[in-house]
Amino acid sequence: MNKLVKEITSREKDFAQWYTDVCLKAELMDYSDAKGFIIYRPYGYAMWENIQDYLNLKFKESGHENVYMPLVIPENLFQKEKDHVEGFSPEVAYLTTDNNDTEEKLIVRPTSEVLFCEHYKKIINSYRDLPKKYNQWCNVVRWEKTTRPFLRGKEFLWQEGHTVHATEKEAREETLLMLDIYNKMGEELLAIPFVTGLKTEKEKFAGAIETYSIEALMHDGKALQSGTSHYLGKNFSKPFNIIYRDSNNQEQFVYQTSWGVSTRLLGAVIMVHGDDEGLVLPPYIAPTQVVIIPIQSKNEIVQKITSNLFQKLEKKNIRVKLDNQDKSPGWKFSEYEMKGVPIRIEIGPKDIEANEATIALRYSRERIKVPLTKIEDEIELLLKNIHEKMYQKALSHVEKNTHTLTDFSLFEKTIDKGGYIKMSVHDDAEEIIKDNFQASARVIIAEPLLNEICPVTNKKATETILFARAY
Amino acid sequence: MNKLVKEITSREKDFAQWYTDVCLKAELMDYSDAKGFIIYRPYGYAMWENIQDYLNLKFKESGHENVYMPLVIPENLFQKEKDHVEGFSPEVAYLTTDNNDTEEKLIVRPTSEVLFCEHYKKIINSYRDLPKKYNQWCNVVRWEKTTRPFLRGKEFLWQEGHTVHATEKEAREETLLMLDIYNKMGEELLAIPFVTGLKTEKEKFAGAIETYSIEALMHDGKALQSGTSHYLGKNFSKPFNIIYRDSNNQEQFVYQTSWGVSTRLLGAVIMVHGDDEGLVLPPYIAPTQVVIIPIQSKNEIVQKITSNLFQKLEKKNIRVKLDNQDKSPGWKFSEYEMKGVPIRIEIGPKDIEANEATIALRYSRERIKVPLTKIEDEIELLLKNIHEKMYQKALSHVEKNTHTLTDFSLFEKTIDKGGYIKMSVHDDAEEIIKDNFQASARVIIAEPLLNEICPVTNKKATETILFARAY
Repeated sequence: MNKLVKEITSREKDFAQWYTDVCLKAELMDYSDAKGFIIYRPYGYAMWENIQDYLNLKFKESGHENVYMPLVIPENLFQKEKDHVEGFSPEVAYLTTDNNDTEEKLIVRPTSEVLFCEHYKKIINSYRDLPKKYNQWCNVVRWEKTTRPFLRGKEFLWQEGHTVHATEKEAREETLLMLDIYNKMGEELLAIPFVTGLKTEKEKFAGAIETYSIEALMHDGKALQSGTSHYLGKNFSKPFNIIYRDSNNQEQFVYQTSWGVSTRLLGAVIMVHGDDEGLVLPPYIAPTQVVIIPIQSKNEIVQKITSNLFQKLEKKNIRVKLDNQDKSPGWKFSEYEMKGVPIRIEIGPKDIEANEATIALRYSRERIKVPLTKIEDEIELLLKNIHEKMYQKALSHVEKNTHTLTDFSLFEKTIDKGGYIKMSVHDDAEEIIKDNFQASARVIIAEPLLNEICPVTNKKATETILFARAY
Repeated sequence: MNKLVKEITSREKDFAQWYTDVCLKAELMDYSDAKGFIIYRPYGYAMWENIQDYLNLKFKESGHENVYMPLVIPENLFQKEKDHVEGFSPEVAYLTTDNNDTEEKLIVRPTSEVLFCEHYKKIINSYRDLPKKYNQWCNVVRWEKTTRPFLRGKEFLWQEGHTVHATEKEAREETLLMLDIYNKMGEELLAIPFVTGLKTEKEKFAGAIETYSIEALMHDGKALQSGTSHYLGKNFSKPFNIIYRDSNNQEQFVYQTSWGVSTRLLGAVIMVHGDDEGLVLPPYIAPTQVVIIPIQSKNEIVQKITSNLFQKLEKKNIRVKLDNQDKSPGWKFSEYEMKGVPIRIEIGPKDIEANEATIALRYSRERIKVPLTKIEDEIELLLKNIHEKMYQKALSHVEKNTHTLTDFSLFEKTIDKGGYIKMSVHDDAEEIIKDNFQASARVIIAEPLLNEICPVTNKKATETILFARAY
């Protein structure tokens, strides 16, 4: 029983409140006593574990190794790359002690580029030592002023990959490979169609030459930057002096990348798929994929058949739960709807008599009858279908809400409806749009220009950009 | 190529230096620029991941769920349990910011009992909500003055379990269950025979009623506390007011446990099994279980046969590596010996002609010939045998170095040889032994008393204790 939230606000009435209600009531997280720091509850953390399992497999398949760097960075190290320190310094927190035995200030990592750089400098000598492709799973601290569960917090969990290569070509390929892995995670795990592309100069990572991003469109029409992959070139290897000897025994600076996704992805899943009844989870990230609810749970035949089915599904590695709690089926139905469990199987004496079960699908709220003997085989197929339909639904939301504009006078009306606006503009347009409409450049799209003259500035259009209001 | 350490000191000459050499040269870790904080390199971190995989399975099988609590604890919360705060305050570090927008001091978690307590207080109402069995994997910070890789650091990685129960019986069973899981991990994964038992009042966890410990005996005869399981009783639920309503609707305080193991286990594996050639890894924790080294790696038939074998072993989920680097077999042999890879398979043209391969076992340095067609089946069995023999060897080391004493005059000579000393003593003996011989009470053993009168104090003996010098 949950004493935190009783009702969920509807999405149309107040999307922000709906989001908070779902986070708390579906027991994904809770607020902690330290302001801006959250507790990841079992149901929320299990989603993060599923993301970790998915990515660890992809990372290892592509030759990456996990490591762990310290929580803290000596301040003088952090200051070596100028843009990097400027980008992060407003958000920096320090580790201190009462006895002050530390010779210099220790920054709690907001990201670990400089720690990896110092380590790579030490362990790389020759071209034979390259590439090095490391990743780490850890917590980072950024002293954000306003925080929201999963989306922005003073601490969050993430993975950060850091790689070192002999050539620009190889480093650029790595940057795009990781972008592709993130994008596929959207397709295969989260049922989220990401839009991918380059960030503008203003929006790129502090210290990167180029930043690629995966952007997702939430139900309310706002965009969420959901992960980034950076090509760092020699921006860090020069100040950190990371050098290798090539096959001609000449000293060369290495080329680097970094890339990361965070627990922010949970926010994306909630806001892309959720509805007024609560969470709606895509099957492959769902901690519980199938819940079996016995109708008349004290009935012996019902007990036998449901526990039998439970065992069969578990043997197929389906994440299944049998709820035998002494509570009414109605209470259980709304509990698991709230928690977004993709498939609910109801089995009662009448079903057994008719040799069937009722299957309720969370995403569409359909109820279908399936012969008892066929359930086992049906479930895997159903999970696959649900995933595909949820992906398609999210994709069609993106398509319906992507507006191509050549007439700037329509911008305000269009952006107020939500979604992306695609425009071919001059560089200067970005700031004008941000100042006037609180919409930002999400990504530069690799498409031909829509017009020669930028409709915002009347200067020559240079690139096609997706604009949106964003979290 | 490793530029950090060229040679390994022998264990007899300087065990402490041998340990540091192995940590660095086997590429398990490196020092970071922040004093007292280490870098877990891929080879060391992979061992930790194997421990995580093993324990996650055991935790989940026994109904535990993973969560994640914040990095920081508001100072006023931390002070609620008197013994707890006294035990940890010398080691406490704080999170601070330049803009000082935090109303109170934030402690960086040295352990998370109080965070779990606050959360449990919020989510537990009724006996129906019990038990709650949570675990978290995270980093913790303790401001230690002297640090050693894996054994003691300003930051380390660990898991901390925190559970809440309706009855004392259930909480005590949980405490012992977790001790048992840790002990089995020694048997099944680390090939380390732990001695388990209660800690004395002086050595128990700050805030616990009882602390159980797993203790391991290192090669040099010193003990290492390798994990603990605490029965907390109502020590935390009273100051934190964690109450549930029982089935008679009466308010009751909950009973709690906590338990943890850390990256210190890597230190135990190194110091129990290592030899003068470097690391010796038990097969189930080894990141690489089998390395295949082609002799004349450019020979086409050698290439074909070795890559064929590699694929077959990989298909069997054996962690196998095929080393095709352009380096001499001799260099590779010593590299993988240093790194403690349990099995090395050498295959060259002559072996192929004779239809066999040479298998070298790291732990015993035996070399055996195996018919090529039988290698695949042989390997799994070999891994199992190696594990068992390494466990037996470590066990016989413990047995040989456990000395039962009833004559206190022999204490100094005996403890100087290393190992455990078993004595039946009065409570006051512990401090005398610590002050005079720098040996501490490792655990109280559940065995009949050896003598009625304590040979240290001449008072009545109350319990049988294992004493040792310890890390």
